[in-house]
Amino acid sequence: MKYNVAIVGATGAVGRKMLETLYLRKFPFQKITLLASKKSEGNIISFEGNNHEVKALENFDFQDTNIAFFSAGSKVSEIYAPIAEDRKCYVIDNTSYFRMVEDIPLVVPEINAKELIKTNRKIIANPNCSTIQMVVALAPIHNFCKIKRIVISTYQSVSGAGQSAISELKEQSKNILENKNVIIENFPKQIAFNVVPQIDDFLDNGFTKEEIKMVNETKKILDKDIKVNATCVRVSTEVGHAESIYFELEKKLELDEIKRILKNTKEIIFSDTDYHTPIDCSGNDWVYVSRLRKDLFNENGFNFWVVSDNLLKGAALNSVQIAESLIKQGVL
Amino acid sequence: MKYNVAIVGATGAVGRKMLETLYLRKFPFQKITLLASKKSEGNIISFEGNNHEVKALENFDFQDTNIAFFSAGSKVSEIYAPIAEDRKCYVIDNTSYFRMVEDIPLVVPEINAKELIKTNRKIIANPNCSTIQMVVALAPIHNFCKIKRIVISTYQSVSGAGQSAISELKEQSKNILENKNVIIENFPKQIAFNVVPQIDDFLDNGFTKEEIKMVNETKKILDKDIKVNATCVRVSTEVGHAESIYFELEKKLELDEIKRILKNTKEIIFSDTDYHTPIDCSGNDWVYVSRLRKDLFNENGFNFWVVSDNLLKGAALNSVQIAESLIKQGVL
Repeated sequence: MKYNVAIVGATGAVGRKMLETLYLRKFPFQKITLLASKKSEGNIISFEGNNHEVKALENFDFQDTNIAFFSAGSKVSEIYAPIAEDRKCYVIDNTSYFRMVEDIPLVVPEINAKELIKTNRKIIANPNCSTIQMVVALAPIHNFCKIKRIVISTYQSVSGAGQSAISELKEQSKNILENKNVIIENFPKQIAFNVVPQIDDFLDNGFTKEEIKMVNETKKILDKDIKVNATCVRVSTEVGHAESIYFELEKKLELDEIKRILKNTKEIIFSDTDYHTPIDCSGNDWVYVSRLRKDLFNENGFNFWVVSDNLLKGAALNSVQIAESLIKQGVL
Repeated sequence: MKYNVAIVGATGAVGRKMLETLYLRKFPFQKITLLASKKSEGNIISFEGNNHEVKALENFDFQDTNIAFFSAGSKVSEIYAPIAEDRKCYVIDNTSYFRMVEDIPLVVPEINAKELIKTNRKIIANPNCSTIQMVVALAPIHNFCKIKRIVISTYQSVSGAGQSAISELKEQSKNILENKNVIIENFPKQIAFNVVPQIDDFLDNGFTKEEIKMVNETKKILDKDIKVNATCVRVSTEVGHAESIYFELEKKLELDEIKRILKNTKEIIFSDTDYHTPIDCSGNDWVYVSRLRKDLFNENGFNFWVVSDNLLKGAALNSVQIAESLIKQGVL
């Protein structure tokens, strides 16, 4: 069985990674259609010698498409995902628009693939990048011994803000090194040689939307009783999010037991002799866990450091894995 | 009354800031002697038209010096601080060597200046930069309502690793932008366009020495019962450390009450409408506090974001303030 696939937002940072991922994982596609806004119509996007012409989303009929990967912003998903669903096309949506809708599954396949067979909907939400890598690292521990609370501070790369944000980081950096003025477009403040504790807009409670996504999505994916406290910070890295995570278990657990669990989790690369940084992990599929240690003052408290490619496991890879899981479970 | 002052490690990032700070604060000095290793002997360091020739520490007699600011590494302090003390010279030491020695005061003047009059020693320790800005932000709250525990993740600038680390960040950044190879000298891994979760060496418990400094120094300065859990991370900023701090109080306290306390603390600039980043704070004396918010799931839990210039309040400024406090309290 082969599938007709569409990528909505194909010219963006995640859209490009979607195309690459479909090829690299040998996804059983018949045809890949790249879709974007009218202004990108006719552009050619290539991967390993395969040329794809970008078509306008506006005029596209999803009738003959089996799976559409959406990554073109919440507004686009709001309008076009239901249109695709009406045409019996599965939508795997990488925006936040449908994530907290009750009957829409929010899926990290290693954790809750079964949600895909429980639903009547054809829209599946892909979680936020910073949520995915955190829950991948915590889920195997949580399954063994319940996690009560999490305090997390993130070190998020600029690629999370899109392709133009990567260019802006480079441009700002170059200008600073040459003592020239800096232009700020994609960020609330200068990002080069700086850190900015704001991702997405602020809410009345003082948290940003990005921080609340981590709270709500973790509850929906892992366990509604987990208490999450998040601080999301943009740093001047290109690709790869890092996270400093403190977690507290319901019961006492030996450090060696947690090491054993992490070492035995297929999608995790665990190190207890070294640590990983964003540049080590960029371009790779795994969630990297290191710096595991026990709180000095709390028998049930632990820290670790989690790094992953936000465009891959945090977005494109997880989306393609959702599609693979739909096929594997006989839904599609 | 005027004082003869010496700066040991005058050619380093902190040493240079010491000189500037003494001038800018109009410290009542008679003479400033700059000291460094033999290889810097004869170099001229200038500030606002005042030229100072660097002398070799090795041959220096502290007999006529009233106050010496040490910032040339632990080894130098270990050897020369006791020699200076024997000569009745007050030593304000910016290294970690004496910080946890029981009869040596560890001082942030706004918090525990009284330790300076209690001691018989003439060596006073200046705390670690990341500790200072944290305790300045927490102390006024702790005085009002006891803080039980702290979970902190830092975003520390490269200047904490010295003058050559600043040059290395720039050099690495330039090379990456030009697709050239990167040379790593002052850091355990590439720092440009990266984040590195290691500052100082690792201990057997999995924490780094930098993280344990934050634990032990906070207990010594603020309260031995406070439980501190720290993750210290180097980011690619030049000057200014940022900290994502979660703290839990013994009792319930209204958010507005904490705001009031922070707003009324002289050494803190508090904002509840905006936030501060390292580039905003670099070169300034204050500790900047923003992003104050209440934990969504814990009535006694709060987050805030603390930024300060690690070379100033984190090092040179605090050291000079210790000297000023010695004078003000009639010790010197």
